Amino acid sequence: MTTGHGQTPTDDGVPGGAAAPPGVSRRGMLSGALLAGLGGAVVGAAGGGSAAWAMATSDAATVDDTDTVDLDRSYPYYGTGHQGGIETQPQRHTVFMTFTLADTATKSSLQTLLARWSAAAAVLQQGNSVGAVQPSNGVAPPGDTGEAAGLSPASLTVTIGLGPTLFDDRFGLAPHKPAAFSALPTLNGDTLDPKFTGGDLSVQACADDPQVCYHAVRNLARLGRSVVTPFWAVLGFGRASAGPGQQTPRNLLGFKDGTRNIQTDQQYSEFVWVQNGDQPWMEGGTYQVVRKIRMLLETWDTDRVGNQQQIIGRHKEEGSPLSGAHEMDTPNFAAKTSTGDPVIDPVSHVALAARENNGGMMIRRRSYNYTDGLDANGELNAGLLFIAYQNDPQHFVQLQNRLGAHDLLNEYIRHVGSAIFAVPPAPEKGHYLAQQLFTAS
Amino acid sequence: MTTGHGQTPTDDGVPGGAAAPPGVSRRGMLSGALLAGLGGAVVGAAGGGSAAWAMATSDAATVDDTDTVDLDRSYPYYGTGHQGGIETQPQRHTVFMTFTLADTATKSSLQTLLARWSAAAAVLQQGNSVGAVQPSNGVAPPGDTGEAAGLSPASLTVTIGLGPTLFDDRFGLAPHKPAAFSALPTLNGDTLDPKFTGGDLSVQACADDPQVCYHAVRNLARLGRSVVTPFWAVLGFGRASAGPGQQTPRNLLGFKDGTRNIQTDQQYSEFVWVQNGDQPWMEGGTYQVVRKIRMLLETWDTDRVGNQQQIIGRHKEEGSPLSGAHEMDTPNFAAKTSTGDPVIDPVSHVALAARENNGGMMIRRRSYNYTDGLDANGELNAGLLFIAYQNDPQHFVQLQNRLGAHDLLNEYIRHVGSAIFAVPPAPEKGHYLAQQLFTAS
Repeated sequence: MTTGHGQTPTDDGVPGGAAAPPGVSRRGMLSGALLAGLGGAVVGAAGGGSAAWAMATSDAATVDDTDTVDLDRSYPYYGTGHQGGIETQPQRHTVFMTFTLADTATKSSLQTLLARWSAAAAVLQQGNSVGAVQPSNGVAPPGDTGEAAGLSPASLTVTIGLGPTLFDDRFGLAPHKPAAFSALPTLNGDTLDPKFTGGDLSVQACADDPQVCYHAVRNLARLGRSVVTPFWAVLGFGRASAGPGQQTPRNLLGFKDGTRNIQTDQQYSEFVWVQNGDQPWMEGGTYQVVRKIRMLLETWDTDRVGNQQQIIGRHKEEGSPLSGAHEMDTPNFAAKTSTGDPVIDPVSHVALAARENNGGMMIRRRSYNYTDGLDANGELNAGLLFIAYQNDPQHFVQLQNRLGAHDLLNEYIRHVGSAIFAVPPAPEKGHYLAQQLFTAS
Repeated sequence: MTTGHGQTPTDDGVPGGAAAPPGVSRRGMLSGALLAGLGGAVVGAAGGGSAAWAMATSDAATVDDTDTVDLDRSYPYYGTGHQGGIETQPQRHTVFMTFTLADTATKSSLQTLLARWSAAAAVLQQGNSVGAVQPSNGVAPPGDTGEAAGLSPASLTVTIGLGPTLFDDRFGLAPHKPAAFSALPTLNGDTLDPKFTGGDLSVQACADDPQVCYHAVRNLARLGRSVVTPFWAVLGFGRASAGPGQQTPRNLLGFKDGTRNIQTDQQYSEFVWVQNGDQPWMEGGTYQVVRKIRMLLETWDTDRVGNQQQIIGRHKEEGSPLSGAHEMDTPNFAAKTSTGDPVIDPVSHVALAARENNGGMMIRRRSYNYTDGLDANGELNAGLLFIAYQNDPQHFVQLQNRLGAHDLLNEYIRHVGSAIFAVPPAPEKGHYLAQQLFTAS
């Protein structure tokens, strides 16, 4: 028994007759129609084990989609209009951290913190250290914690957000709170853990090297000591949202995640950037919604693929809508089977979330996979760090209330963390983030 | 005020006068003598903020050390003599997971599990799926969880280890336990958490893409259901040990970690591979010691750099021993200062760990940084997933007992997790891991 990939399965000689898995080329699956197009090359399960091994017998050559990452790329921080990490082609990793302000924090110390963070972010995005790793004066602590010394910029972007709690009566900022901005209400399906919910400030550091992300957030946290305390943090990997020119990555459900994301300038203008709002300091900004979504992977993994596809509304390999053949095909929610049932279940994830069924509304998704290891039962404690940007928080609220009430996927996911932040535009050189908020009269 | 890097610090206009950090090129620091060689280009702290910003005024060009990763590289699983992930040039990421055997497990089910894992590891290392992501028979669960579909092999290696507990009276394997192999004794300085200690089996999946690592371990765990339960797991990043041709990476203390690692065939032969041992099934194998070492980063970050360097025994930027100028210089433990004190503190980390002070003994270190987010106090819960390979567990025991008793670093670290595993050689084609253990009479 041989496969088309030149591998000879082992004769393991084991009692029970566990068959060796011949393997299916992951690359071959990239062209979604490959197996089907070769006339049913998937020939079923082999072996007597409990795992259903299937094999591909095609001789298809490996698709040449060499995946290279230019770690030397860097993005400017100042004068870019919008902050980075939103429209930016998604990097491979993120460290996301929220912070709470100390009881002793004042408007002035908050202002100073944002000025320091802005200056540090600018330096970090260029691949520089925020201070001497090894001060010539040996009695000084290092100005930079050093773990990124020698590393490339790796496309780092630092995105800083302000929580709705900053606009309470502590800092005199209440008059400058945008009318659209408040803490997220309780949403359908919420099972939030207070440990991962809320925050006065957020930092999203994205880069193509996790050590660069970690270094950035750690040094901002260090700069903020005595003013802020880190609250909750997530290390994200496997960028689960695609950008232009990127293949659509997959989340831990094994499905592509981020198809039909916001891409065009027109879409950004209409749905992401705040324009002609009620607060000048937020012009060109946006709102960041973060949801820590645990996936019940063991349960999901025992589900039959037909059911998984019904739940998502897409084919698993290609990512095409169940009404179509290619990932980018527009879902046809009116399509019916020969027996008159809708091809795409009206309470599938894609049906509930699609712009066609939400008055044309879209949000910019920029999510990452995460793992917190194992839970107390030895089950995978992992899921999606969902991050979305939109110019009106109500867009997310409406969407999630629909999903939370009806989505077939709800059986397999739990929203365990949640927060919302106002993300001001990028500062100009010589200025700092949200400066206009503090100088507004 | 401008730096040599063309950056104009901001005039932030903030009360308190926080100065903008001009930034120090991380790349420039690669050539350790750069700043010193330019005649004291580090000119001290600027600004009135509480953070000590230092600046480099050199015009040194960026070092061209473009860091590219060939995600298309794959390693064979069978017939390689030793398992991969030991001598292999360290990949950028790991997922390490331990497992406990179910009460109902038998010698036969353990054997079958290792056969299945071997076959799956072989398939995974080639960048293939372990079964159909989307079975043509829609009522079957997917054979592969799918999140790596379309991803490159990314240099994946799967390293499987057997815990000392497998050799108790459950499976009749006691007669085949190597004399050198047993659970680690309590070691000096141990502050182990039972949640991260021990395990019947281990899987170390290393790759240049964390999604590939996660996918591999998740699918092995899935294959093992009903036989094993996942016990503890760590996602590692920032490969903290160098290999030939790699720059030495840094751990979260900001110091290079892995200098003077085992590299030559002669060193592997002498210190890593079991040869002429008492158990034929372990010939060409080795022992894996894993320690989850939390670092108290906030405390470390407030320490002056002179003290940090004394603790480690090396310069922070270059990584050179305090007795030398270059990273690869052999430490001179006899060197004295003008006042007669040793240049390298005898209880520094490097002095206690160096082969010169341990009868020539070396271990193969292959560690990764990790983060578990934040602890209940909002402090960084992060550190080093220390993984070492040696042909005699006593080598590690001796080393760690010395370090645990005397190391100046102990003030800043806590060994919170620990395990040891026997790592048999790689199976030949047509065989499975540790097959000889089960067929020995």
